[in-house]
Amino acid sequence: MSNCLVAQSGGPTAVINDTLAGVIRANQLNPLYDKVYGGLHGIEGTLAGKLYDLTSLPYWELQLLRQSPSSALGTCRYKMKRGDDADYHRLIDVMDAHDIDTMFYIGGNDSMDTVDALSSWAAENAPGKRFIGIPKTVDNDLMLVDHCPGFPSAAKLANQITHATRLDYDAYTRPEVFVLETMGRDAGWLAASCCLTGDVDLLVLPETVFDKDKFLAEVQKKMDETGACYIVVSEGIRDAEGNYVSAGAASHDGFSHAVLGGAAMAVKTLIVESGIVPRGVVQDLSRAARSSNFAQSLVDCTEAYELGLSAHMHSADPNFNGMVVGVKRAPNAEYDKYDAVYFTVPAKDLANYVRTFPQEWILPDYQGITEEAKDYFRPLVQGEPLLSYDKNGVPETIRPFNLR
Amino acid sequence: MSNCLVAQSGGPTAVINDTLAGVIRANQLNPLYDKVYGGLHGIEGTLAGKLYDLTSLPYWELQLLRQSPSSALGTCRYKMKRGDDADYHRLIDVMDAHDIDTMFYIGGNDSMDTVDALSSWAAENAPGKRFIGIPKTVDNDLMLVDHCPGFPSAAKLANQITHATRLDYDAYTRPEVFVLETMGRDAGWLAASCCLTGDVDLLVLPETVFDKDKFLAEVQKKMDETGACYIVVSEGIRDAEGNYVSAGAASHDGFSHAVLGGAAMAVKTLIVESGIVPRGVVQDLSRAARSSNFAQSLVDCTEAYELGLSAHMHSADPNFNGMVVGVKRAPNAEYDKYDAVYFTVPAKDLANYVRTFPQEWILPDYQGITEEAKDYFRPLVQGEPLLSYDKNGVPETIRPFNLR
Repeated sequence: MSNCLVAQSGGPTAVINDTLAGVIRANQLNPLYDKVYGGLHGIEGTLAGKLYDLTSLPYWELQLLRQSPSSALGTCRYKMKRGDDADYHRLIDVMDAHDIDTMFYIGGNDSMDTVDALSSWAAENAPGKRFIGIPKTVDNDLMLVDHCPGFPSAAKLANQITHATRLDYDAYTRPEVFVLETMGRDAGWLAASCCLTGDVDLLVLPETVFDKDKFLAEVQKKMDETGACYIVVSEGIRDAEGNYVSAGAASHDGFSHAVLGGAAMAVKTLIVESGIVPRGVVQDLSRAARSSNFAQSLVDCTEAYELGLSAHMHSADPNFNGMVVGVKRAPNAEYDKYDAVYFTVPAKDLANYVRTFPQEWILPDYQGITEEAKDYFRPLVQGEPLLSYDKNGVPETIRPFNLR
Repeated sequence: MSNCLVAQSGGPTAVINDTLAGVIRANQLNPLYDKVYGGLHGIEGTLAGKLYDLTSLPYWELQLLRQSPSSALGTCRYKMKRGDDADYHRLIDVMDAHDIDTMFYIGGNDSMDTVDALSSWAAENAPGKRFIGIPKTVDNDLMLVDHCPGFPSAAKLANQITHATRLDYDAYTRPEVFVLETMGRDAGWLAASCCLTGDVDLLVLPETVFDKDKFLAEVQKKMDETGACYIVVSEGIRDAEGNYVSAGAASHDGFSHAVLGGAAMAVKTLIVESGIVPRGVVQDLSRAARSSNFAQSLVDCTEAYELGLSAHMHSADPNFNGMVVGVKRAPNAEYDKYDAVYFTVPAKDLANYVRTFPQEWILPDYQGITEEAKDYFRPLVQGEPLLSYDKNGVPETIRPFNLR
């Protein structure tokens, strides 16, 4: 019998460790592999031969792993380039050295592309090596799936902070605006999800053009009509020329993505300088949204775990290669209840495409989202896992494997 | 029988409505007053005669009130000036018009000063009118009390976000710093509380001078030794000349307090410009910390509620006037367990003094806090209230009284 490898890549989420725990637990329930190795820091550490034996983690530690946010194996922004044979050969060498024939890669768009590239290359150059993708991304921007694990928990925290800070904002009489910023470079799913509770007056997404004059007119209108204006913006909002509204659009990460930040501050400054109100409050969810283990969605935890189980189980078929497991919403669910169903799809079908927030779910003039969009979000944020807390009043977590 | 009035002032907290619920419930258990009126928007709305009858709120609504963040009556930053007879007469007129003889004022430093000023003035000018203070403030800066309701829940969320974002930060290999900012203009209690879980490398408080060169040397040292540097700063940190490190120290609120923001961004920029690391992440807790009804401390909820009960019960004594109820820690508690005891103190003894974070609890060179300080914080953040959630996955809340 051979071994398998599992690694995490891209931005961490609140439930990415659920998926890891799922793969490990599935192998304890049915040992398809002698050992389950964790590759530290995604492809980057794996290429350097940094593996951690996860095979026999006790149940209690798997439970703590499940309530630990961030990527317990560590992550990376390293991209294996198509056609870069050196990296490919190096990976196969590491796999051979540890008798590994199957690699599970938990990640977003870029990772699914890596799964596709590796499996295509291995078919010709390293027969018997398999690569299987399991999605995660708070951006929720993968094609073909209904949603991505990690997004529902981020949306749940975003919603909770939106509702709580709206109540805080409403306690005052003084004229000011509130501007909340969420992650979301190209897709506005997370920002849009903040509208679920009805607390948002104006919403700006990467999918809509930020027209300064039109926007300011809407702010003025809300202030005139209600004396308040609570605004949510996605970090990646742009004007008609495609320029980022945020100030800090200068730097770039390893994938040539612009590193953003400051869209809310820019919008607040714009409003204050226009003279509509003398002051504003900025709340940037920043990293808190994606690492909110104290506000996980139970639906999300469950699905992320089950996707880990499912990927491992599918891999019993030796031809299961270059594939991704994903979640779909059961059509016509009985009693009108939400139900997730799992399916598989070739990685190439979703690699490198970005699913933006649907135009038909966006109300005109920055007025938020449609009821249909709310119906999409609502089932995803249901339920709260029962957490164990440590002596410092925070959910108990494990020490990450990459730091051991 | 006469009526009583209760109002909320200053910055909202996650549990200020627990205290309001306590006053209302106490009067349902023992109706010392015919009616319990809520004054909308603190002194500001009360002076304008905006009262809301809270006497008979059903138990289920009191329960929802308890899990609603922010000030359900609305708040204000309006300060009654000592010697401003016009406002004082106006308030007495409003009280007379509604047959009110007792006013409960839930607030921070400034509100306790208002309680003192009003009770002194009334002793000569409006005999029979009484003013009673109940503390709240996330700043935790009131004298004589062990801690202030609202602070423990803010500390609990700050701690949870610190621990979660530290794990997120640790997942990466790239060299960068993380800078988290908390509220805290003159006192660093909230920032200091982030050190409870051991995740903070460097801490800068308003109580310590921000010495740029010394600080940058410590950042360099942490990066050299561990490859990481997770920093927490309080919004009000200042250099040796007393200048705020934050960029936005220009504007002032109604109390001549500087309106701050941006200390973390300023510190991050300083570090990146010094060349120690090429990038950094900024997380500003902003309003989220004080309105975190999804992460309340059960100890905090209980004490805030019981302070409301206690203030009402003390008011059965007609001589109870110009007084504040507060929480102390029981000395030599049995079994070494934390226990809160309630006491009363004249408002003048704590009005307008600020209790800063003790110098003897601060480690030198921005290295955090002592074990004694952690022993102080730890019992305050224990326990999680059982919350009911609405259909959108957020804790169910009431519609604020000031918006009805």
